[in-house]
Amino acid sequence: MNVARRMDLLGSETAFAVSAEATSLGATGKKIFPFHLGDINLPTPSTIVTAANEAIRAGKTGYCPSPGIPELREALAKDVGNARGLNYGIENVSIQPGGKPSIGKYIASMMEKGDVVLYPNPGYPIYESQIEFYGGIAHPYGYVNTPNGLRLDFSAIEEGIKKGARHIFYNNYNNPTGASSPDEEMQRLADLVIGNDMFMISDDAYFDTLYNGTPKSIASLQGMYERTLTMYTFSKRFAMTGWRLGGAIGPEEIIEQITRLNVNMESCTTHFVQHAGVAGLNAPQKETQAILDELRGRRDMLVRILNGIDGIEAHMPEAGFYVFPNITSLLKRMEFNDVEEFRKATLRETGVSFCGRHHFGRPLENETDFYIRMAFSGIGQEDLLEGMDLFRNWIDSK
Amino acid sequence: MNVARRMDLLGSETAFAVSAEATSLGATGKKIFPFHLGDINLPTPSTIVTAANEAIRAGKTGYCPSPGIPELREALAKDVGNARGLNYGIENVSIQPGGKPSIGKYIASMMEKGDVVLYPNPGYPIYESQIEFYGGIAHPYGYVNTPNGLRLDFSAIEEGIKKGARHIFYNNYNNPTGASSPDEEMQRLADLVIGNDMFMISDDAYFDTLYNGTPKSIASLQGMYERTLTMYTFSKRFAMTGWRLGGAIGPEEIIEQITRLNVNMESCTTHFVQHAGVAGLNAPQKETQAILDELRGRRDMLVRILNGIDGIEAHMPEAGFYVFPNITSLLKRMEFNDVEEFRKATLRETGVSFCGRHHFGRPLENETDFYIRMAFSGIGQEDLLEGMDLFRNWIDSK
Repeated sequence: MNVARRMDLLGSETAFAVSAEATSLGATGKKIFPFHLGDINLPTPSTIVTAANEAIRAGKTGYCPSPGIPELREALAKDVGNARGLNYGIENVSIQPGGKPSIGKYIASMMEKGDVVLYPNPGYPIYESQIEFYGGIAHPYGYVNTPNGLRLDFSAIEEGIKKGARHIFYNNYNNPTGASSPDEEMQRLADLVIGNDMFMISDDAYFDTLYNGTPKSIASLQGMYERTLTMYTFSKRFAMTGWRLGGAIGPEEIIEQITRLNVNMESCTTHFVQHAGVAGLNAPQKETQAILDELRGRRDMLVRILNGIDGIEAHMPEAGFYVFPNITSLLKRMEFNDVEEFRKATLRETGVSFCGRHHFGRPLENETDFYIRMAFSGIGQEDLLEGMDLFRNWIDSK
Repeated sequence: MNVARRMDLLGSETAFAVSAEATSLGATGKKIFPFHLGDINLPTPSTIVTAANEAIRAGKTGYCPSPGIPELREALAKDVGNARGLNYGIENVSIQPGGKPSIGKYIASMMEKGDVVLYPNPGYPIYESQIEFYGGIAHPYGYVNTPNGLRLDFSAIEEGIKKGARHIFYNNYNNPTGASSPDEEMQRLADLVIGNDMFMISDDAYFDTLYNGTPKSIASLQGMYERTLTMYTFSKRFAMTGWRLGGAIGPEEIIEQITRLNVNMESCTTHFVQHAGVAGLNAPQKETQAILDELRGRRDMLVRILNGIDGIEAHMPEAGFYVFPNITSLLKRMEFNDVEEFRKATLRETGVSFCGRHHFGRPLENETDFYIRMAFSGIGQEDLLEGMDLFRNWIDSK
């Protein structure tokens, strides 16, 4: 049997390979400091766990409707709507086994073969993978380094639009860069989407992990409600990465198509996990606030340490779990030719494991700086300090 | 936004529509007798429930490897291998959120656009849907009614092979017909697969629900091990339909491709549910035997009642949850023109809800008989008797 040709078009999430590499090294007895994966080493809030146990006991173990149980669709419509000043109903929600499935399901439903699709790069690598798998033309847009943080590269976006882009993935509170859009940047993007009759897939994975202030979604801007599909996940906000629970929220016509794919792909999302999700959305805010407070402590610590190392420049991410330091000067000083070489050497010498910019899309032509991504969601403060000490000492010793 | 053209090729599982129709009628106060869905109204064995609760408590709530946790892959390789006299290892298993996902993932991985694919019809409608969605040519094969039950229509299979069929779906212990292959039929099918260099997807959803004797898989036949992908599900054997747990088991080259799709689609299957699956495979057999014993009682009761109604002929299914009675004479006598009309009238008049043959694929050209599918997995013996009394009385009154 030969593998079908379409599989040549399929990408991957190569961060999982880094994870496997770290695990192998760990198995030899070396202590690993896991900064590589956006997993969360904090327990799921007890309200959610209790609700799951109760739902199993109550027999919520059979099939449920393909778009999700009505209670969760309704609760999610309300939660997502309230947080964005928008009005969603049950018909606007299709429950998914995680945040990720909405990427491929949107593309399969709405992208014709040959459509140009804009996507952030560096960004979550599954956007590009799914666009290309279904025969689209993936057009990357990057970020520009400014004193106030990374900003969207509008020249790349406008180039994609000139090529006829019809869809755009946008991940405000971006993974891996931690970048977020100031109001005027978000408005400029919305104007382009509306003016060019495009459709927006807003990956809101980190929307609910903003450390200060109120998060803002592009769907809230005038004229964007009907042009935005929001990708929602329970993973980050509720420390539920391994539960696999999320949803697609947007125009009913698209939600209906996505649900047709649910029927074909997984029938429904785990029944009792959906009841746990309802409990999460209704839980006292202090349970989720505790997750955020812990993460904030790690973030502040990590950014401070990184900026104390000569040759490293790290912006403070406003949301999410990721610091994306520029290590160009450091690599020059240490005489490394590329990030991958540096990454492997660091892992081998110190056990500190992280991803490089190249794990988040093929580097763009105009890129000259080197970046790594350090996740602080999977490592406690004590290990964070211990790992960063080893990291700094190793650098200083060279 | 227009829906992408490929969505025109996507089918559905129309049994869900029957379920929705019954639910609506039930909401008006009418008592519904649910013979329409292959869901199970029995609790998941307590060993499995306890293991799930413990796994959550133990923090198995983060991401896990995309092909599944090693413990479950190993346990499933051993279980599936032992039951079939075959030797599988961890590398032969990719864990899935249910039995269904393997259908589309196999097709996406291994079927080129334009390939002819044989599939049973009547059969699980997602085979046809996924073959066509990915641009294959779905070639149906039906069943021939014999005094000993339904037998594979080899003339249709050979016709597909003449057209160049490269893949074949086979669902021994078939849904919806309940048909199973005697040894010589299975051997004849294997000979065709081997002789024509085809690949087999063996949907073993009901393999572990054989009521008497030892189930047999086509993968066990000489020369078939390397040509068979087994679709495994925890749903039926362990009354875990809503847990969404299953796996693809077969040649490593194919399993690797399927796992690449896991990475793209859902990252991984719910982590703690996989630990529950390990517990299920290791559980004392008496827990699962109790499920089978209850189902056997319902089956015997239902088949006896059906065969006591003039104009209905029902074979006794050896495995699975479905009776597929021939109601041709009954419909003639009652002056119904088609099964759908009869189905709707029965539901309205008696609350007895079931599917028709047409919910399991487009009827074939040479079909003249009428069939319905009655599932006995979602209805207890008392309600089964009450519903069938109403059914029979309504028929007698006409």
